[in-house]
Amino acid sequence: MKLAAVLLLCGQVLSYNYTTKYFEVPVDHFSFTNNATFKLKYLINNSFWVDDGPIFFYTGNEGTIENFAENMGFMFDIAPQFNALLVFAEHRYYGESLPFGDESYADPARLGYLTSNQALADYVDLINYLQTTRSRSSYSNKVPVVAFGGSYGGMLASWLRMKFPASVVGAIASSAPIWQFQGLTPCENFNRIVTDVYKTALDDDCSVPLSRSWKVIRNITSNDAGKAWLSAQWKLCTPLKTQSDVDTLVNWFSEIVVNMAMVNYPYPTSFLAPLPAYPVRSFCYKMTESQTVDDETLLTTIGAALEIYTNYTQTTKCNVINETAAALGEDAWDFQACTEMIMPMCSTDDDMFENSPWDFDTYSENCYKKWGVKQTHPELPILEYGGKEISSASNIVFSNGLLDPWSSGGVLSNVSSSVSAVIIPEGAHHLDLRGENKDDPESVIEARQFHIRNIKKWITDYYYSRDRKFFKNTSLYEKVTFARRVNT
Amino acid sequence: MKLAAVLLLCGQVLSYNYTTKYFEVPVDHFSFTNNATFKLKYLINNSFWVDDGPIFFYTGNEGTIENFAENMGFMFDIAPQFNALLVFAEHRYYGESLPFGDESYADPARLGYLTSNQALADYVDLINYLQTTRSRSSYSNKVPVVAFGGSYGGMLASWLRMKFPASVVGAIASSAPIWQFQGLTPCENFNRIVTDVYKTALDDDCSVPLSRSWKVIRNITSNDAGKAWLSAQWKLCTPLKTQSDVDTLVNWFSEIVVNMAMVNYPYPTSFLAPLPAYPVRSFCYKMTESQTVDDETLLTTIGAALEIYTNYTQTTKCNVINETAAALGEDAWDFQACTEMIMPMCSTDDDMFENSPWDFDTYSENCYKKWGVKQTHPELPILEYGGKEISSASNIVFSNGLLDPWSSGGVLSNVSSSVSAVIIPEGAHHLDLRGENKDDPESVIEARQFHIRNIKKWITDYYYSRDRKFFKNTSLYEKVTFARRVNT
Repeated sequence: MKLAAVLLLCGQVLSYNYTTKYFEVPVDHFSFTNNATFKLKYLINNSFWVDDGPIFFYTGNEGTIENFAENMGFMFDIAPQFNALLVFAEHRYYGESLPFGDESYADPARLGYLTSNQALADYVDLINYLQTTRSRSSYSNKVPVVAFGGSYGGMLASWLRMKFPASVVGAIASSAPIWQFQGLTPCENFNRIVTDVYKTALDDDCSVPLSRSWKVIRNITSNDAGKAWLSAQWKLCTPLKTQSDVDTLVNWFSEIVVNMAMVNYPYPTSFLAPLPAYPVRSFCYKMTESQTVDDETLLTTIGAALEIYTNYTQTTKCNVINETAAALGEDAWDFQACTEMIMPMCSTDDDMFENSPWDFDTYSENCYKKWGVKQTHPELPILEYGGKEISSASNIVFSNGLLDPWSSGGVLSNVSSSVSAVIIPEGAHHLDLRGENKDDPESVIEARQFHIRNIKKWITDYYYSRDRKFFKNTSLYEKVTFARRVNT
Repeated sequence: MKLAAVLLLCGQVLSYNYTTKYFEVPVDHFSFTNNATFKLKYLINNSFWVDDGPIFFYTGNEGTIENFAENMGFMFDIAPQFNALLVFAEHRYYGESLPFGDESYADPARLGYLTSNQALADYVDLINYLQTTRSRSSYSNKVPVVAFGGSYGGMLASWLRMKFPASVVGAIASSAPIWQFQGLTPCENFNRIVTDVYKTALDDDCSVPLSRSWKVIRNITSNDAGKAWLSAQWKLCTPLKTQSDVDTLVNWFSEIVVNMAMVNYPYPTSFLAPLPAYPVRSFCYKMTESQTVDDETLLTTIGAALEIYTNYTQTTKCNVINETAAALGEDAWDFQACTEMIMPMCSTDDDMFENSPWDFDTYSENCYKKWGVKQTHPELPILEYGGKEISSASNIVFSNGLLDPWSSGGVLSNVSSSVSAVIIPEGAHHLDLRGENKDDPESVIEARQFHIRNIKKWITDYYYSRDRKFFKNTSLYEKVTFARRVNT
């Protein structure tokens, strides 16, 4: 089945082509108690692939894989110069890759195989399959694979290289908060970065009215008339009735504020939602001079400004407040965030959000209520992936945009000679993995050049070491082969 | 509970002291479907431990942990100079560390958690527990841990460093056949090495009569009278009755021949069995001039020679032919060898054993009959641990004795600047991990010195990098601390 995802970017129509395939993987890679298998979806594009070229492998994260593939133009942009095969693998329990079909989220006994370890093992198996079946090369040996990933996908890309260096020669890990775990990063950093983004979007400090808004919401919704009024003003599909509805609304509102910072790209995009260029700026622009308005006007202004995110396409009739990013698999991620991916977050007086302390016990208790699974060891991912002690890793680029709140948990300085950090001051969440755009800031152009240089080094080193074994005495042949392979 | 293992080595009485402890680990580390836990046994000795000293951690393998601890004198020998805490962790499903008690081997649903991955995860958890609870240091940071292991334990030690470099600063992997997997090593190498050991033990080539013996056994046992005769000659507890009994006998005999090569140490030991110095030499000495004897005399001679292995203590009344090394957990290892640890072996005309080709399908079929578990992917450990592509690993010493058949699957040359190979020409199976002995060949003394230099470098690097963060401006203090720590 051939699919073409057509994206509207800055008036240009880009088309990313791929074929959808399925690969059978074990439900449980780590025991012999369970022989069940399921089909993992992956997208593949071989239009740039020549002869013995490398595989560029996107380690899918928490959503349908198409949504990521369509926002990873960088891989398509550079595939031709590397003669690369493009593969985007879907993460188990998301999209169509459901180990137990519709029953996948039914109970902990079925959800329990949703872990980063199992996902990495899926990718190792798929990579091995691609390397052994897709080789058009005359050599008996495998082609190199480079992992790419953004966000949680970037964490997976870097972990894939750390844990399975024989499977991937290197990893581009963009906006990967591998240090957003217990004890590695102060829990307040994330929300401080969001605050800074709103503070600096325009001359008029937009964080001030936002900061004020939480109490105003709480006050106004403290009676039924206020709840009804705000429900109408903010066009909620289901009017607020209870205190718990108000909590949900506050959550929804803060998540949108966070999401706009994450996808604060310099041109219109459709990743978490269809959005204009620099959505935070647009949002803050609509809030201009709302610093001194009365309470009702403040909320009316915010309600209108939120349409930047909720209704940029002018097709939304009303707002459903228990989802903010329909393309992401929010339930499955919630389970992951309750088990392995426990990332402490909090708000203090130093940011613009409602105060909320980090309280592991309450968090864990809520998780147990929701999923029937209790996590008593928040240090699990640190033991598994090494926390800050990753200096023995190699061939990883960690890139982070400073507009991106997730940079709070990112690797922001070089770790070793081959584990590097790239900072993109004007970048939002994995901007560098998006396709080239005329509105790209200089810093992201440089970051992508850095990626290309690293990828070139990793695969050239790999080919050299691989082929030296086979062609020890044919140095001319070697040189010709190299020249053809990396044709830039 | 204080235990003292007293070993008789060359007339010297050595005593290795340790306390037995238990640590609770999850039955399944890799999913959230199973909350069961069990107690993992470990032995601990803190008599050499001073202040902020390192932990020397033995990654237990296929047997009760006491048997390994008692044969790892090297760790006891060097602990004082490093001020080290000694820990020997038992491998799950062996000794007392049974996830489901007596029912642990009952069915695949219970045996299924017997994998190297689960064992490594046990060790990571235990190391973390020891580091966080056993620190007598005034620093808030963790003490370094060095992994030690022999044979399968050496594989685990090296994999622990490869997969969890934040848990161990380095690994001494002795006689670790990490390349004894499908496609990495010719299956006939193992038996060729055994043959060489018997060929060169004495001037009189002892592999010739052994080579002849298999057909003689088959001929003589082809009728009932012959079966009865051989059963009496070889003092079998249960006389041979069927063709299958003869197969078991041939297996038992060849395993003893292999085991004697493995533990062909230069002084009396009690690892797989109580044995004299150089058991292969003693065995071959008893076979002198048996090259031209008649069939019956050949088997009578071999029967007497086998007592070197089966009855060195003169206390064995008769031989049970379905076990050769009582201290090892043969059933559990058989399950591992049927699932993850499939190590292709074969015999050809170039070795002294009965011909036997490597046939994965038959092997797999037999495993299914025995354990109800089918392994269709013999490449599993290669995907998991990287096969020969381990050049991105660091801080591992692979040592191999050339008298040891398992060197067939060992790493025999340097892999990178910090992954080194040490060859011990006169060494049998992990001789270097045994305690110092006056009969040690020069090559093992040098190997141990090499280990010490590497361990010193790993832990010094670790302390330096760790403490630099805390004592940036107290260089005098740092120097004093270092000097005290590594007092050699």
